Amino acid sequence: MTKVCIIGDVGHFSHAVRAAAESDSLCISAVSDGVERAGCEKAFKAVSECNPSAKRYADYIEMLDAEKPDIAVVNPYCAYNARVSIECMRRGINVFSEKPAAVTLAELDALREAHRASGVAFSTMMAIRYTPHFAAAKRAVEAGAVGEIRLMNAQKSYRLGKRGGMYLDRRLYGGTIPWVGSHAIDWLYWISGKKFSEVYARHSSMANRGHNDLEVSAICGFEMEDEICATVSIDFLRPASAPSHDDDRLRVVGSSGVLEVRGGRVYLINENGEQTLENAEPVNIFGEFVKAVEGKPCDAVSAEDSFYVTEACLRARESADTGKSVKF
Amino acid sequence: MTKVCIIGDVGHFSHAVRAAAESDSLCISAVSDGVERAGCEKAFKAVSECNPSAKRYADYIEMLDAEKPDIAVVNPYCAYNARVSIECMRRGINVFSEKPAAVTLAELDALREAHRASGVAFSTMMAIRYTPHFAAAKRAVEAGAVGEIRLMNAQKSYRLGKRGGMYLDRRLYGGTIPWVGSHAIDWLYWISGKKFSEVYARHSSMANRGHNDLEVSAICGFEMEDEICATVSIDFLRPASAPSHDDDRLRVVGSSGVLEVRGGRVYLINENGEQTLENAEPVNIFGEFVKAVEGKPCDAVSAEDSFYVTEACLRARESADTGKSVKF
Repeated sequence: MTKVCIIGDVGHFSHAVRAAAESDSLCISAVSDGVERAGCEKAFKAVSECNPSAKRYADYIEMLDAEKPDIAVVNPYCAYNARVSIECMRRGINVFSEKPAAVTLAELDALREAHRASGVAFSTMMAIRYTPHFAAAKRAVEAGAVGEIRLMNAQKSYRLGKRGGMYLDRRLYGGTIPWVGSHAIDWLYWISGKKFSEVYARHSSMANRGHNDLEVSAICGFEMEDEICATVSIDFLRPASAPSHDDDRLRVVGSSGVLEVRGGRVYLINENGEQTLENAEPVNIFGEFVKAVEGKPCDAVSAEDSFYVTEACLRARESADTGKSVKF
Repeated sequence: MTKVCIIGDVGHFSHAVRAAAESDSLCISAVSDGVERAGCEKAFKAVSECNPSAKRYADYIEMLDAEKPDIAVVNPYCAYNARVSIECMRRGINVFSEKPAAVTLAELDALREAHRASGVAFSTMMAIRYTPHFAAAKRAVEAGAVGEIRLMNAQKSYRLGKRGGMYLDRRLYGGTIPWVGSHAIDWLYWISGKKFSEVYARHSSMANRGHNDLEVSAICGFEMEDEICATVSIDFLRPASAPSHDDDRLRVVGSSGVLEVRGGRVYLINENGEQTLENAEPVNIFGEFVKAVEGKPCDAVSAEDSFYVTEACLRARESADTGKSVKF
């Protein structure tokens, strides 16, 4: 039996809850509050529905030492992801962390070092990689559907609604580029397999409807290896009346084709004409992480990818904060 | 009768040919070659079909001095747009120029000065403003459909095919950001009415299928007034099998709605839900310019807009050439 504990409930702990509900060999034994006013009501409620004997702790350190889990699901306020992950890894606990893995480059260095020293598995919740449409896009690009990638455009657009907690305090939140944009930045790296060489970014809190310093619009321009260039567009301005919470898009322009993910489908134009690709089967990201922990073949987000994309997000945020482009 | 002459046939002289064919008060009296190996076969053939007595000149200066037209349609190789326009304006001839109006900032200054001194009308061929879908988008944004604009994403994607002439020599061509990207950069300014404050751009000639130094992929990130940010994506990589030559798109994200131009239609989501807007009636850009020349109320692209968008294109190209962001 693989024992799992959840810390905080700010992010996407639900991947683990769903995986545990569908598995006989996974048990979420306990849930704890996050750090600094971050509770765990939502997570504890969801876990208790599957495991009525799950415990609840106020202090996550106490939980880790008492429960000695195999895996910690880390999703306190973003600003504490790195600190909490490091505490877990020092105890030899594998970490499934909300993204961004860290909100400063210094913390990211400490996290990388703690991971190196621990030998445990570490992964971030880049769950959109596992959706049927993005997985189909990745498969097609790998099969050569667009030839050599030359240009990419990624889009994240979310409804804002009324948000509280960390969203009202950039110190706890880390910024919209790392929180929302991290998915888009991950796609660029994941789909192309190419590294970033420079980023130019801008963001703004204007029109955020009373959400303090929350940035609700942002752009990034990336220069990548092999003269590939890419744009990222991020906003929290999707109208409440929109048919979905998000409007995730990715356009991949290659030497011999153009592929587009939009509205949950994948469109391809290349020498074979226009087609809509068949979506892939949905895969639970946490299930892949458990396989990684167990040393089985899997498609988990690697620690290296997690750290690299976090770094890219933080450099983009630095560019937006300082008004200067930032080299990698 | 308004007398028109055409110089060169590299660009979109056809707007003038079409307008003349539909008007009793417009006459294209003559056509001349451009500058440095640029002919006028296509233009002369098209004009002759409507006006069998149209003359053909090898030298445009000779034509201007002999014909004394009211309007010159300027579309030699891009690199000569400014020089030819200045010669026309010095003779008191109104100028309808291909974009970009100039390919260096020094020439743009000279062009602005020549325009100021001449008092004639000057306009560039930003014809996409007049398409039924872009005109409908402009009308909707002006009517407040998205509230305050916060973010824009513009896309130009063209088929490359096999190109010769100026496309094979950046010195004559001026670059893909000014030639193709100028439309997208124009949309940002035209739709929002806001000025640019900084640009970061990158471009690449890789995968251009033997077209020398022709850039076939490019991005721009713009910082604009009021913390508006915008991306531009440009490519010549649209597959030959695509259903159209171009894939023009514009996404306008505002404080209360998102509008999108795509595939010749305009999609809007705001507090009234989702809708596809009615397209506007098509308008001939040259017809509007003729009205401007005649002092009538019109919707011509102003000289100021023409020069400003040219400047933005050249600053973006400078950023891509130097690898540095450029302030306005």
